Amino acid sequence: MKLTRRYEFSASHRLDTPALSQEANRELYGKCNNPHGHGHNYVLDVTVAGSPGESGQIASRAELDAVVSERVLARYDHRNLNLDVPELCGIVPTTENLAVAIEKALSANWPLPAKLAGVRIQETDRNIFELESKG
Amino acid sequence: MKLTRRYEFSASHRLDTPALSQEANRELYGKCNNPHGHGHNYVLDVTVAGSPGESGQIASRAELDAVVSERVLARYDHRNLNLDVPELCGIVPTTENLAVAIEKALSANWPLPAKLAGVRIQETDRNIFELESKG
Amino acid sequence: MKLTRRYEFSASHRLDTPALSQEANRELYGKCNNPHGHGHNYVLDVTVAGSPGESGQIASRAELDAVVSERVLARYDHRNLNLDVPELCGIVPTTENLAVAIEKALSANWPLPAKLAGVRIQETDRNIFELESKG
Amino acid sequence: MKLTRRYEFSASHRLDTPALSQEANRELYGKCNNPHGHGHNYVLDVTVAGSPGESGQIASRAELDAVVSERVLARYDHRNLNLDVPELCGIVPTTENLAVAIEKALSANWPLPAKLAGVRIQETDRNIFELESKG
Amino acid sequence: MKLTRRYEFSASHRLDTPALSQEANRELYGKCNNPHGHGHNYVLDVTVAGSPGESGQIASRAELDAVVSERVLARYDHRNLNLDVPELCGIVPTTENLAVAIEKALSANWPLPAKLAGVRIQETDRNIFELESKG
Amino acid sequence: MKLTRRYEFSASHRLDTPALSQEANRELYGKCNNPHGHGHNYVLDVTVAGSPGESGQIASRAELDAVVSERVLARYDHRNLNLDVPELCGIVPTTENLAVAIEKALSANWPLPAKLAGVRIQETDRNIFELESKG
Repeated sequence: MKLTRRYEFSASHRLDTPALSQEANRELYGKCNNPHGHGHNYVLDVTVAGSPGESGQIASRAELDAVVSERVLARYDHRNLNLDVPELCGIVPTTENLAVAIEKALSANWPLPAKLAGVRIQETDRNIFELESKG
Repeated sequence: MKLTRRYEFSASHRLDTPALSQEANRELYGKCNNPHGHGHNYVLDVTVAGSPGESGQIASRAELDAVVSERVLARYDHRNLNLDVPELCGIVPTTENLAVAIEKALSANWPLPAKLAGVRIQETDRNIFELESKG
Repeated sequence: MKLTRRYEFSASHRLDTPALSQEANRELYGKCNNPHGHGHNYVLDVTVAGSPGESGQIASRAELDAVVSERVLARYDHRNLNLDVPELCGIVPTTENLAVAIEKALSANWPLPAKLAGVRIQETDRNIFELESKG
Repeated sequence: MKLTRRYEFSASHRLDTPALSQEANRELYGKCNNPHGHGHNYVLDVTVAGSPGESGQIASRAELDAVVSERVLARYDHRNLNLDVPELCGIVPTTENLAVAIEKALSANWPLPAKLAGVRIQETDRNIFELESKG
Repeated sequence: MKLTRRYEFSASHRLDTPALSQEANRELYGKCNNPHGHGHNYVLDVTVAGSPGESGQIASRAELDAVVSERVLARYDHRNLNLDVPELCGIVPTTENLAVAIEKALSANWPLPAKLAGVRIQETDRNIFELESKG
Repeated sequence: MKLTRRYEFSASHRLDTPALSQEANRELYGKCNNPHGHGHNYVLDVTVAGSPGESGQIASRAELDAVVSERVLARYDHRNLNLDVPELCGIVPTTENLAVAIEKALSANWPLPAKLAGVRIQETDRNIFELESKG
């Protein structure tokens, strides 16, 4: 059985890669390349898998929230993804790369008995990214 | 191909297990352990899988609705899950256990040609539980 | 200008009035009269009105949240509305009466410079109640 | 990793199959068999799978949008599915058959480096159809 | 206090007025003028106003549902608005005109003690129409 | 009758006023004062009022969209509200001030026959701002 808990964070970013010319960046990322950045309300779904034991719960909600808050929300919420999040430094902060970074932050020494099954990020409600975890 | 139909029911519950002391129950379940119970609008998604035949439908919507209504909604909606639902008696009515009970109620002698693929329950829109069915 | 902030609480209730016979209660309230109660995820919108001053804010979000948390959420969330909320004792806890009680709890000695403009409660996403405040 | 982008289109249809008598059609499709048709706002989710390369993107959003617009939206949006869409001629336009037709239209000579992983259509927010793609 | 209950219906329509040339119709209504029509899932909110009496309810939910079902849903749901709804015959079935027709159907000999306060229709979740009722 | 059309834009901002010390800014705006900014998906609802004339429409959808796109979306979407939007220069870009600026941009020489009735902005789905227009 899987349990998915939903979290939210608001952050700004700018899509631009030094590997490309200004024109190529502009063409590739469109208005996401605007020089002063823009932002989103990101929705983050974290999914864990396991069996409800004696407590009837796959995972303690409080413990899962604590992991996600400490490892992700406290560092991403109300931040500039290009400047404030160390693991994204020098990486284009597309939501794909964001998903990879968040999955890595969560899966490293995953502390709960339930398995980390995956993460899912909505950049807008029309743009959704999913990454399975080998957790 | 899969068809998912969405249903809703409103029910009350209290999380408390006799295996634990009052303090341990309070710590484990938090405010869900409040003595007089509380409640939720549960969203239940039932997924069936199959091939659209001559009718162009994996499953008759009316037949699927009848099964879910009779086996789940009529017995769970506007009920107290601790007291009114026989298969939950003596079981902590976490949404995990609710999902197990509902999947069991549906899959026993499953009457439709389409396969029961799984159930998904939202306790709140930030807390979602999924269970695959061996149908 | 108006600012509306959205809150949520989960509670159980049973609709039944001693003024009526069992049959009349059953007919009037339908399945909401089921003896052991049921519950909902209530959505509470609190609206305040004012002018953004030097801070550019009608009201401090933290101060508004503190008022709503202390006066409503801490006392209604994960509670049984028939048994746990003093001002609803002896009153049928319909969402109409809930709205009246919540508006009263908020408007009494309203502590913020912005005016309380109204409350809005969703019992389900198909059942919405609005009450203007003379705040 | 998977990227899902959400699109919408509005269309009308009538469910009726010449293989059956008028009575049998009426019984099978219910009010969806009403002679002059009815309509829906369909939500179409298209999912692609791949790895974010140097650009940090599984797929160019502009290129994916162009494929879906040309192959699906331009031909289905604000149309009558029984009369205006060649590949549905003579086929009962259930959402199951719609999903099959849309997946076929997309997967034929799929032009993007990312793999087409599947399509998902909501006829209403209580009726959802999913079809994996072999891309 | 106001109570709003939400209903849904699915219908097809085509926007075209005989007062204008084919070209002018095409320019005015765009793709909504497509000859074979298209359709929507309409969301209808009906708002009544009153005071919760002894029952704690502004209006009986069952009675309000019965009025809306008989006067609107039974005649509009799964219908073609150009051909199947008598009061729309010869009228362009824009959502504005739909709102006027539905308000009229409801307010004529309004049978409930609570006042009809207004109707609100969503054609899509980005297109919303509101009409106050003089009830 | 009122027509509301919904638009969206994504932007970044930082809340900070030179009138206050760093500590006072931090206390007043909390994490919204983080130095490198953050961002949101803003939802903008624009409401116009009028009577459906011969066309059955209060306002031409295409004309309303053109006004909102030119005056707001083209200048706010994927921008940094502190640096890229001239009318917000030197003003704390709270959503209150954003609503004031957008209403001003729309109401100045309002070009449509339908009256501008108001604007509504959601910063997140739990934080909503409404401003009536004297349009």
